[in-house]
Amino acid sequence: MRIIRYELDGREGRGVLEPSPTGDLVHAFGPEGEGDNAAGDVVARLDEVTLLAPCDPRTVVCVGSNYACQLEEKGRPWPERPALFLKAPNSVIGPGAAIQAPPEVERLEYEAELAVVIGTLAREVRPEDAMDHVLGFTCANDVTAHDWRADGQWARAKSADTFCPLGPWIETEPPEPGSLTITTRLGDRVVQQSCADQMIFGVPEIIAYVTRWFTLRPGDVVLTGSPAGVGPMVPGDRVTVEIDGLGALSNPVALRR
Amino acid sequence: MRIIRYELDGREGRGVLEPSPTGDLVHAFGPEGEGDNAAGDVVARLDEVTLLAPCDPRTVVCVGSNYACQLEEKGRPWPERPALFLKAPNSVIGPGAAIQAPPEVERLEYEAELAVVIGTLAREVRPEDAMDHVLGFTCANDVTAHDWRADGQWARAKSADTFCPLGPWIETEPPEPGSLTITTRLGDRVVQQSCADQMIFGVPEIIAYVTRWFTLRPGDVVLTGSPAGVGPMVPGDRVTVEIDGLGALSNPVALRR
Repeated sequence: MRIIRYELDGREGRGVLEPSPTGDLVHAFGPEGEGDNAAGDVVARLDEVTLLAPCDPRTVVCVGSNYACQLEEKGRPWPERPALFLKAPNSVIGPGAAIQAPPEVERLEYEAELAVVIGTLAREVRPEDAMDHVLGFTCANDVTAHDWRADGQWARAKSADTFCPLGPWIETEPPEPGSLTITTRLGDRVVQQSCADQMIFGVPEIIAYVTRWFTLRPGDVVLTGSPAGVGPMVPGDRVTVEIDGLGALSNPVALRR
Repeated sequence: MRIIRYELDGREGRGVLEPSPTGDLVHAFGPEGEGDNAAGDVVARLDEVTLLAPCDPRTVVCVGSNYACQLEEKGRPWPERPALFLKAPNSVIGPGAAIQAPPEVERLEYEAELAVVIGTLAREVRPEDAMDHVLGFTCANDVTAHDWRADGQWARAKSADTFCPLGPWIETEPPEPGSLTITTRLGDRVVQQSCADQMIFGVPEIIAYVTRWFTLRPGDVVLTGSPAGVGPMVPGDRVTVEIDGLGALSNPVALRR
């Protein structure tokens, strides 16, 4: 199942996509339906709605340095445990929305990541139970102001407005997450391409580690790290994160004014 | 005006306190009242409700190293700009709730801070307009797992569950924030005492700096740094942060199980 959040005629809603030869259809989501629509009603065609980020997280927890290929590229040591940092909710945007590059930033970077969306309250979850707390997966771009990493703490570098594109939808039945190919394109040029089997800590281990201290709630998001090939983007670029079976998340880059 | 969030008979509400010789009264909050109560109705006596954190922030942005007395104590250099970090929403608890010390942490520290609660959407706010976006002030304890600062990024050190006590209420008409005395007690012993005039970046400058990149929403919180005297606490302790005119925020420390 593919779950979306959308805007239509100035109203927000949640929907489920149904493939159709004449364009995917948006069905009202959930047992109680959505707005004026009963459960399962066709609300619109996909091309009639504006997609929003597919969830509205309060907490976005991220794992840094989690791909073997990235560690090799950067010459970093193997981590003993997942290296956690946070992205604030103001950073979240949906597919198609502009990543706003602050004029003060010299080097703004894309980082393609597999995002895990939490479905049920998760506290001190064991690795073997972790997937029971997952609603599904989506694509993320962990946008980073490289020069602001010099702040020490990465709040500005990782959490400025628009620095967390998510989407296009939550796929609840993806292929095995550890086997997914992640590709980033800048315009038409492939700039990152790797397989999630390069992850050092897998999804269940990460969820267990995070929820040892952070209680996560439905809609919260865990980003699982970016493969080798992280690089710069500038206003005028279009950056696309595509993950097998999860779709493509594409955002233009604009200059923040 | 003093604004609270509370629980009564298993339901959450927001209220306004009215001093009374027989115990402060809780009035229903806001133009539409609260639950079954019309605006201004007396809902309960203060001692009949359980206080919750006085707001429910999505974003808690914090400034480190912001007190001259703390820099002197630690021998740290004067900052060129506010040093920002984040605390995640799962860390927020209210007055009286237990700070849960993870058994893996050797040194858990209190850090008393003046907290600013945002009242209206704040984006790229000028210092001279900053106070127009502030609903009021409350006390905060920026609980920190000192040994986990070695993670590099402070997500675990600062944002584990229960690491952000807030309260007891939002004071909307405090004395001049820059003149407030902040006192921390461990049991009856005073362990931190300083004046907010030791702040390097004042409240309006901090709000202007943060909102240059972070859009803040009503209920979001900005912590303004802790004075000299930060130190350890252990399970069995009771830690109280008191700020002139803002009341006292008191929390027991328990061992997380």
